[in-house]
Amino acid sequence: MLENTGRTELSSLGEFGLIKHLTQFIEIKNESTKKGIGDDAAVIDYKGKQMVVSTDMLVEGVHFDLAYVPLKHLGFKAVSVNVSDIYAMNAVPKQITVSFAVSNRFSVEAMEELYAGMMKACHKYKVDIVGGDTTTSKSGLVISITVIGEADADDLVYRNGAKEGDLLCVTGDLGAAFVGLQLLEREKQIFMESPGVQPDLGGNDYILERQLKPEARKDIPPLLKMLKVKPTAMIDVSDGLASEILHICTQSEVGCSLYEDKIPIDPAAYNMAREFNLDPTVCALSGGEDYELLFTIDQSDFPKIKANPDISVIGHMTSKREGINLITKGGSSHPITAQGWDSLLK
Amino acid sequence: MLENTGRTELSSLGEFGLIKHLTQFIEIKNESTKKGIGDDAAVIDYKGKQMVVSTDMLVEGVHFDLAYVPLKHLGFKAVSVNVSDIYAMNAVPKQITVSFAVSNRFSVEAMEELYAGMMKACHKYKVDIVGGDTTTSKSGLVISITVIGEADADDLVYRNGAKEGDLLCVTGDLGAAFVGLQLLEREKQIFMESPGVQPDLGGNDYILERQLKPEARKDIPPLLKMLKVKPTAMIDVSDGLASEILHICTQSEVGCSLYEDKIPIDPAAYNMAREFNLDPTVCALSGGEDYELLFTIDQSDFPKIKANPDISVIGHMTSKREGINLITKGGSSHPITAQGWDSLLK
Repeated sequence: MLENTGRTELSSLGEFGLIKHLTQFIEIKNESTKKGIGDDAAVIDYKGKQMVVSTDMLVEGVHFDLAYVPLKHLGFKAVSVNVSDIYAMNAVPKQITVSFAVSNRFSVEAMEELYAGMMKACHKYKVDIVGGDTTTSKSGLVISITVIGEADADDLVYRNGAKEGDLLCVTGDLGAAFVGLQLLEREKQIFMESPGVQPDLGGNDYILERQLKPEARKDIPPLLKMLKVKPTAMIDVSDGLASEILHICTQSEVGCSLYEDKIPIDPAAYNMAREFNLDPTVCALSGGEDYELLFTIDQSDFPKIKANPDISVIGHMTSKREGINLITKGGSSHPITAQGWDSLLK
Repeated sequence: MLENTGRTELSSLGEFGLIKHLTQFIEIKNESTKKGIGDDAAVIDYKGKQMVVSTDMLVEGVHFDLAYVPLKHLGFKAVSVNVSDIYAMNAVPKQITVSFAVSNRFSVEAMEELYAGMMKACHKYKVDIVGGDTTTSKSGLVISITVIGEADADDLVYRNGAKEGDLLCVTGDLGAAFVGLQLLEREKQIFMESPGVQPDLGGNDYILERQLKPEARKDIPPLLKMLKVKPTAMIDVSDGLASEILHICTQSEVGCSLYEDKIPIDPAAYNMAREFNLDPTVCALSGGEDYELLFTIDQSDFPKIKANPDISVIGHMTSKREGINLITKGGSSHPITAQGWDSLLK
């Protein structure tokens, strides 16, 4: 037994020991999971449904800063950002594999925290951890997750189906995760300069939670099904609204008019953005990490969604020739360019 | 167009540009791949077959040293070690997702080399690259691959089916990859001490290829099917023969007698091991990275495999009570313990 207090070195368990230790409480939830962790591969049976697969890698110092990200939240977020891609296909996530590279800087307890966050997310999204790999890193922590989901072929929604005249919709609100990151960065700077000063994070729960513990929109695919709306195109907002609109427009070969005054921004995020001298609209367009769903629907479906407080119509699709434009609050039109997260330019 | 000579900075393409550039020549080979790269997730349709999934992560400085590993070989190896896990289930790999974290130390040309090696392996194993993620790393290169394969439920072979009296078999030969690594490490040391000295690698092609460009045993599942042999348990040799035998014995709840004189070792590897004052048997037991298949068969299947030069019978399974033992050339019996690669103890 590992003690609950103190630090247990990773080397005391070894690779196989660590895997066994971390995976001991995994319980299979899905009938399709025929064999989980413990063999060369997992076995999954989808019986005629179509399978969807997506993968994401999170790198310490690039995607997260352990100075202010609790490991448990990081584990939760790592799973959330992955299942979000499956919901964006209008599908249901079922299994994940989890690989991480970790240095001896981390204790067994630290990995337990990370894993606990992942397990919490798996419970929330009802997915099974069916495999993974654990290895040494020379420095930072790297997490790679692959998620597998299922859907009937007819239900799948791609990025390339938007048509001229379709309405552009988004769930929830945008920009808060980016504002939350600014807040965490500011408090980190203050703390590094004056370690005695306690971080001033009070009253910003929503913004911080959007950054530290985002939740994927598990509720949206069943909601759309209930409303009898099948989007013509869909994508999740991971790199920022601008980047995602460009993806849909490029793949669907259409243009878009996005209305600034329709972009849903939480009041707390709006005010905090102003405090940082940031334009809240720019935070929504280029901030990213919102993990909301952006989708297009046929105009005839508008009555079905208009009463839903969680879905905003923010624009409409135009001909490709008309371009991809932001119509500002002042009524002028500006081309939207990719300002999204571009890790390699950093 | 990128020029073929010189160095192109990753920042000149950006994340999306790099992905587009690297993936432009991907052609879908499998009917089951309904949608590959380019959406939130890939879509796969297995129509009643069972799906198998495995994942592996390779970290620079831990699993490979770019001082002597050409990037193209690394790409090939990264795919090979992953599909090997699928063959070890007696299944056929069909799709992979590829994620990598990479620093600006690498040029676009370097990533092209890596990708070219992956594509070569994908061609060899007839698998489709259906997704991935590309991100920044603060220092080294990290590659994470998830492979998906298919099989009829009846064909799948797990680690837990070995029975007392079964024969223990292995394909090909063992230990050469480890000896190859020693050779590369030695020449690197010499080069670092005297940069003018050319590496002395001549005449060791087989050993070096086993380390740098291992091939997964794609031929074995169809061979076994043709011979009408279904193994009772199977695993691939990635961590060394000792470690893999322990996995099968633990999961199957049996013991094993392994005969030292039956372990297949290539003569060149044998001689080179001796040159390094290494026991060739220890190289086979603990070296790893051979990517051969280790499996158990019912004794009644022996006539079907005995004439095959590529399969060696190296022992037999006993009762759990009798333990897991190596019977040496001298006839004495020694318990086999896990000496396999244990990255976290390094």
